[in-house]
Amino acid sequence: MSRRSRGSNTWEVRASTLARNTHNLIRDIVENLQVEPNPNKPLIALSVGDPTTFGNLNPPEQVIQAVRDSVEWLSSRSYGPAKGHLEARQAVAQYSAHQGPISPDDVILCSGCSHAIELAITVIADSGQNILVPRPGFMIYKTVTEGLGINVKYYRLLPEQQWKIDLEDLEHQIDEDTAAIVITNPSNPCGSVYDKEHLYEILDIAARNHVPIVADEIYEHFVFSNNEFFALSALSKDVPILTCSGLTKRFLVPGWRVGWVIIHDRHNIFGTEVRKGLSNLATKILGPNTLVQRALPTILSCTPQSFFDDVVFFIEKQAKLAYEELRCAPGLRPIMPQGAMYMMVEIKMSLFPTFKNELQFVERMVAEQSVFCLPGQCFEYPNYMRLVLTVPEDIMQEACKRIVTFCQHHIVSRERLKEIDSNIVQVVE
Amino acid sequence: MSRRSRGSNTWEVRASTLARNTHNLIRDIVENLQVEPNPNKPLIALSVGDPTTFGNLNPPEQVIQAVRDSVEWLSSRSYGPAKGHLEARQAVAQYSAHQGPISPDDVILCSGCSHAIELAITVIADSGQNILVPRPGFMIYKTVTEGLGINVKYYRLLPEQQWKIDLEDLEHQIDEDTAAIVITNPSNPCGSVYDKEHLYEILDIAARNHVPIVADEIYEHFVFSNNEFFALSALSKDVPILTCSGLTKRFLVPGWRVGWVIIHDRHNIFGTEVRKGLSNLATKILGPNTLVQRALPTILSCTPQSFFDDVVFFIEKQAKLAYEELRCAPGLRPIMPQGAMYMMVEIKMSLFPTFKNELQFVERMVAEQSVFCLPGQCFEYPNYMRLVLTVPEDIMQEACKRIVTFCQHHIVSRERLKEIDSNIVQVVE
Repeated sequence: MSRRSRGSNTWEVRASTLARNTHNLIRDIVENLQVEPNPNKPLIALSVGDPTTFGNLNPPEQVIQAVRDSVEWLSSRSYGPAKGHLEARQAVAQYSAHQGPISPDDVILCSGCSHAIELAITVIADSGQNILVPRPGFMIYKTVTEGLGINVKYYRLLPEQQWKIDLEDLEHQIDEDTAAIVITNPSNPCGSVYDKEHLYEILDIAARNHVPIVADEIYEHFVFSNNEFFALSALSKDVPILTCSGLTKRFLVPGWRVGWVIIHDRHNIFGTEVRKGLSNLATKILGPNTLVQRALPTILSCTPQSFFDDVVFFIEKQAKLAYEELRCAPGLRPIMPQGAMYMMVEIKMSLFPTFKNELQFVERMVAEQSVFCLPGQCFEYPNYMRLVLTVPEDIMQEACKRIVTFCQHHIVSRERLKEIDSNIVQVVE
Repeated sequence: MSRRSRGSNTWEVRASTLARNTHNLIRDIVENLQVEPNPNKPLIALSVGDPTTFGNLNPPEQVIQAVRDSVEWLSSRSYGPAKGHLEARQAVAQYSAHQGPISPDDVILCSGCSHAIELAITVIADSGQNILVPRPGFMIYKTVTEGLGINVKYYRLLPEQQWKIDLEDLEHQIDEDTAAIVITNPSNPCGSVYDKEHLYEILDIAARNHVPIVADEIYEHFVFSNNEFFALSALSKDVPILTCSGLTKRFLVPGWRVGWVIIHDRHNIFGTEVRKGLSNLATKILGPNTLVQRALPTILSCTPQSFFDDVVFFIEKQAKLAYEELRCAPGLRPIMPQGAMYMMVEIKMSLFPTFKNELQFVERMVAEQSVFCLPGQCFEYPNYMRLVLTVPEDIMQEACKRIVTFCQHHIVSRERLKEIDSNIVQVVE
């Protein structure tokens, strides 16, 4: 045997470009926060969008029972087909009828909605192409693309217009390399819900530029009073759409990791190639766990409407509470959401000159008040923070009280502000 | 708003290179088989490596009970950390102590072993680089790499030496772009189990060429009498190894999708970069479902050794049975496995001239005898077929009987063979 070394002469192992360029901003910040909470106050985490954190929101008995049953079945232990069991895909098609006509063949089951988003984007976007995503936005879109050399371009949302899309900016961002527009509705982190008219405007832009849409509708049906949810696909005449959703938020089971992509392609624009491509990508990890897959038909058909209504009613109540409380916080400007489970709050950073940026602001708030909100930089949107609204009422109240105290404590005094202003003037002069 | 189209002038949506180049040979063939089984004989699927298919092999009561308990817990519904819950990673570290010293930080939980293999390979292999994989081999290695532009090169296994690696060929395949050697032990599809000496020879090659190893040990401990399993990492002095395993085969729950990567890097060759890279990649789909994650400590510590012993004893018995039966089949040459749950059988294609290749052979066997074996092309190895050995004894006996009948029916007669031979001679002349 040859003793000549054909490989390297020394050990030199690097992480791949893919691995080095894959980042999850929220996970990076949440899992690596170096700040210790104030030991005298119990931590209130308004950070991760996990409605189960506080134990006050639980899936209905029917959902748990469906999985209890499934655990006993032989068939819940076997491999499923790569795209998921037919019965489960049938159930998703039926459950998603509000999106338009769907056959089980249009459904690909995934390991959570993140995985669904990964498949939906990477099946149509190539290295060197770009996707358009909202700013502020949920950065999983970036997590699943940047390592692959797919570029992420941002379009603006307008905080003063309930986070509607700046349509001119959206169209301006489209270029010949744009592979998809990602629309998040209802929105994480904004809690906005788009009306029909706005959705039609979005579809018009996609149609005349011939760009398909990836619709992230994991918060479908999470809408507060006087708002209505419309699936983008239900309004689309010709724009082909890949819609992503799952059990995670609506059924209060994020850990179960069950999501799906639904193909809406009435004019056969995606054609067989994209359909086949999704099937190909699905063969990599072979669908979500079959324990829950087998329970899916029962979960999706037997959960009472009152359960969903109660959850949304509860979240809306917390939203109003937090909005009213924080409206009075010096230096903050909360923006009342219309749905989902979050609220964005502007931090007028010029009034908090001791903090370099909003990350320092939220970190210090952890250290002093044991309240943890996500900094805007998790959503590529500085000077804001995101609050999760699924916490119990008394805890929400306490959290708001502490946030107000924190702001009162750190807001610059009028005198100091003048001083700073004159310094700035001096510097400018 | 601009009405000028900045995108394409027509709809032209293509699947990405990644999607087009991602293939799963086994799934493609198994999920798209066009042949109908003989309606007069019940189908015996010796195709997919799913030990639960026939209902004769079941996880022990302790494992099911652990998940029953987990279903009731709030914490089994929440998001887990991207790399998995600490308690679950601790349990994996303890369970895998035979691999060498492991801390929970060395463990990344994944959605099945396929996902573990995807992470392990893609964290160190870049587009344009190559990985070396066994031929015949399990083609998930190809599924998770080719779409990314990582090249797959094959090294030879030697059927006449119990599928040992052709070491000269292995070393010959290494070049300056080789990012990793994949070693599958025990082997799917061969059922081979490497002894210590052979493993040391493999490690020597990796060491002197400075190429890290991805050890696919999902069949760890699946070894028949007179064989012993050694984890490659336990024998490695300096070669850094990423070992992949999971619950799938040993605990008889492939549908649960729980796997893991373990980092073995005693000399800090992977360093923080590869470790960080694995964490990055794990944030894409956020680990396996928490229902099973929460049950993992109990599953891994409370399953009695007798359960594992019984399963392996049963598989060995079926292996012997199939070997004895098929040794007598005209035109076949079974190779007795030493472990795992498969047997490779050579089909002397020249004796079956009505079939163009082994795919036609196995397809016709489905149509006539309702026995489905995987064709060698699923493993990049023509003229062979793979049998799954986890089926009940009476079914295995029946399957073998039918295979023998099929061969008797299709094998060329001596006279016809002579005729063909003389034709060939004429053509050559």
